[in-house]
Amino acid sequence: MTKTAALDARDPLHGFRNRFRIPPGLIYLDGNSLGPLPLATIERVKQTVEQEWGVGLIRSWNDAGWISASERIGDKIARLIGAEPGEAIVCDSTSVNLFKLLTAGLQLQSDRRVVLSQEGNFPTDLYVAEGAVEILGGDRRVVAVAKDELMGNLDEDVAILYLTQVDYRTGEILDLESLTSAAHEVGALVLWDLSHSAGAVPVDLGAAGADLAVGCTYKYLNGGPGAPAYLFVRRDLQSRLTNPVPGWFGHAAPFAMSPRYVPADGVRRFLSGTPPIVAMNALESGIDMWLEVDQEELRAKAIALTDLFIELVSTFLDEFGMQIASPVDPARRGNQVALRHPDAYRVCRALIDRGVVGDFREPDILRLGFPPLYLRYEEVATAAAYLESVLRDEAWRDEKYSVREAVT
Amino acid sequence: MTKTAALDARDPLHGFRNRFRIPPGLIYLDGNSLGPLPLATIERVKQTVEQEWGVGLIRSWNDAGWISASERIGDKIARLIGAEPGEAIVCDSTSVNLFKLLTAGLQLQSDRRVVLSQEGNFPTDLYVAEGAVEILGGDRRVVAVAKDELMGNLDEDVAILYLTQVDYRTGEILDLESLTSAAHEVGALVLWDLSHSAGAVPVDLGAAGADLAVGCTYKYLNGGPGAPAYLFVRRDLQSRLTNPVPGWFGHAAPFAMSPRYVPADGVRRFLSGTPPIVAMNALESGIDMWLEVDQEELRAKAIALTDLFIELVSTFLDEFGMQIASPVDPARRGNQVALRHPDAYRVCRALIDRGVVGDFREPDILRLGFPPLYLRYEEVATAAAYLESVLRDEAWRDEKYSVREAVT
Repeated sequence: MTKTAALDARDPLHGFRNRFRIPPGLIYLDGNSLGPLPLATIERVKQTVEQEWGVGLIRSWNDAGWISASERIGDKIARLIGAEPGEAIVCDSTSVNLFKLLTAGLQLQSDRRVVLSQEGNFPTDLYVAEGAVEILGGDRRVVAVAKDELMGNLDEDVAILYLTQVDYRTGEILDLESLTSAAHEVGALVLWDLSHSAGAVPVDLGAAGADLAVGCTYKYLNGGPGAPAYLFVRRDLQSRLTNPVPGWFGHAAPFAMSPRYVPADGVRRFLSGTPPIVAMNALESGIDMWLEVDQEELRAKAIALTDLFIELVSTFLDEFGMQIASPVDPARRGNQVALRHPDAYRVCRALIDRGVVGDFREPDILRLGFPPLYLRYEEVATAAAYLESVLRDEAWRDEKYSVREAVT
Repeated sequence: MTKTAALDARDPLHGFRNRFRIPPGLIYLDGNSLGPLPLATIERVKQTVEQEWGVGLIRSWNDAGWISASERIGDKIARLIGAEPGEAIVCDSTSVNLFKLLTAGLQLQSDRRVVLSQEGNFPTDLYVAEGAVEILGGDRRVVAVAKDELMGNLDEDVAILYLTQVDYRTGEILDLESLTSAAHEVGALVLWDLSHSAGAVPVDLGAAGADLAVGCTYKYLNGGPGAPAYLFVRRDLQSRLTNPVPGWFGHAAPFAMSPRYVPADGVRRFLSGTPPIVAMNALESGIDMWLEVDQEELRAKAIALTDLFIELVSTFLDEFGMQIASPVDPARRGNQVALRHPDAYRVCRALIDRGVVGDFREPDILRLGFPPLYLRYEEVATAAAYLESVLRDEAWRDEKYSVREAVT
C-alpha cells in the first residue's frame, strides 16, 4: 500500500466521498468554485419538482414547508458558522446580501464615512461597496488597503470593516476574532464574507462577537450552481437595521397584503422577494450532509491534503519558475493552494485536459482547491504528478491552451 | 356532447393541456399564483442537476451555456412582452429588480421627486418604492392614488409612473399604451410590473415605447416556485442607468477580476450576483413552451373562459351575497375572476376541499384564475357548479374552514 493509499484508508471522512457524484477519472480541484453534486440532492430535487410543485402545487407553500425554507435552512447554516438559530437566513445572491447589509450598516453608523476593506478582496465585494456608498451619498467612501495596513486605518471614521475571511486567490485566512475585536475597539461594525471559509475552515461568528456576515453556498457547501446565498446579523443588531429592499417576504405579515411595510421581527426582515424553491431545496440537501461533518476532522484533513501537495510539488516547482502563492503556514491557509506562473492559464488548461480540474485567476494564478470532504490523498499525489509532467514536458505550450474561454 | 365539451373539442390550444402535470381530479384555478409544472421541465431539471452539474461540473459554465443563461432566457421573454433582443434579462427576484430599476430611474430623473403609483398596487411594489425613496433621500416620496386620479397627479415632479398592468386581486387591466404616453408627456419614466400580465394578456412594451418593466415568471409563465424574475430596459436608456448593486455578473469583463467596476454594455449591466442555474433552466423550459403559443388564441380563450364563468355564476351569486369584483367588460379583465364575499376565506377553503383550488386575498376576495393554456371549459363549468353547491349548502360554515393557514 502506498503512503497515500494508507492515508485514505484511515481517513475518518472517507465515507463522504461516496455520497457525491464525481465523474470517474476526474480529479476535481475546483470545489472551491463549484462544489460537486451530493447524490441525495438528485432525489430531493426530483421530489421538489415532481411532487411538491407538480402535485402539491400552491398548497406546498404550507404543506411542504416552502414558506419557512429561508429560515429553516438559515438555522442549519448558522450551526456551521457559530451562529444561533434566528441569526442567519438564506436568500438572494451574495452580491445582493452584501448590498443589504452594507447599506443597513452604513445607515446605522450615519456619523461615519468609511467602509474599510482589503486590496485584493473579491472584486464583486468591492463593486457592491462602491454601489452602497454611492447610493447613500454624503461623503462616504470605500478605502481598500493592504492587509498590513488594516489596523493602521481603523479609526473612528470607519463605519464598517469589510473583509473576506479566506482570500479567493491565495487561500490566506484572516483572523476573524482579532480583526472583529479591533473593529469594535473603534466602534466599527464588521461584515465578513464567508464565501471561501464556511465548509473550508472553522468559522465561529459567535465567539468573535461578529456583527454581520454573508456567504455563498455553491462552493464548499455543495448547494448547486448559483445556489442562494445566506446572511447573518447578530441578534441584538437585527431590530436596529433596515432592509433597503423591503419586500413582502420580510414583512411581519406577508399575506395581510397591507399597503404599509412593517418589518418582521428578527432576521426575516432581511428577506425581500419570493425565494427560488427548487434551488433552496437543492441547497438544503447539501447543508443537511454538512451538519454530519466533524469540523475538527475536516480541518485536520484540509491541512494534511494541502501540506501533502505542497511537499510533493516543492521538489520541482523552482525548476519551472512556478511559486507557491499560498501561505506556507498551514494555520493561515484555507483548503486551496495557489501557484504563480507567467503561463498559469495555459498550465491550467493543460491540466484540465489531463483530468485535473483547477482554475485560473488573473493575472498569473493556478488555483487548486482541496476540499477534504470528498478528496482523496491519492488524488493529491496524482495531481502533483500530472503538474510535474505538464511542466516537464512543456505540454502547456500547445497553442490550443492559449484560447481564452468565457469562464476561466 | 355538452356545450363545454364542444368548446373544448374545438379549442385551438387544447393540446397544451397534456404538456403539464395537473393532478387528476383537481381543478386548478391558481395558476396566477403558481403555474403548474410543464412536463418538459422534469427532464430539463434532471439534465441540469445530474449531467450539467453532476458530470460537467465547473465546465458547464461554458459547455452548457450557464454563463449566458440570463441573457438567453431574457431574449426569449422579450418576445412575449414586445421587446427586442437585448432589452430583457432574467435575474434576482421581482422585488430586487423593482429596487434596481426604481433607484436607477430616480437617479436619472434627479430633478424630480415623486414615484407615482396606484393605491392597491401589489403591496411589495409599494414597499420597495418606499425603500428606494428612503435610501436615495432628498425629499423624494411615493404617492399612491386611486386609478382615476393618476392622470391628475401626473406632473413635472413625477420621476417615475409606477404601475402594475393587471391588478393582482381584481384582474383589471390598465392601458399600458395610453398611460405610458401620458407619463412621457410630462417627462416621466414609466415602470411596469408585468407579473400578472405576461402570459395572461397581450403586452407590447415596444409599441407603447415603455421605459422599464419587471415581471415574475412563476405565475403565468410556469417557471417554478420562486423562479427568477426578469427586467426590461428600453435599449436607448440602458447606458444612462446605473445598477445600484454592481456585481461581477454585470461587469464588462467578469473574469478579469478587476478591482474597478466597469458596467457591461446593454441590459447585462443590471445583473449582480451569480444566477441560480437549476432554477434558471427550469424556467427556460417553461418559456420555450410559451414561445409556441399564439397570443391571439390565448387572449380569445381567456375572455371566453372568464365570460363563461361569469355567465354561469351570475345566475346565483346575488342570492348568496357574493359580488363580482372583476371588470365586466372583458377588454378590461385579465385571466381571473375575483368574487367578493364577507366569508370569502371560508368559501375558498371549502372549494379547495372539493378539489377546486383558488386563493383568498384580503379582506374579502375569492380569487379564481383561468389560465387558458391548460384550463378546460368543462372545468370552468364544474368549478361554477361547486361554487354554487358550497354556497347553497353553506358548506363553508364548517368551523374547520376558519383556521388561517400561513399562506392563503
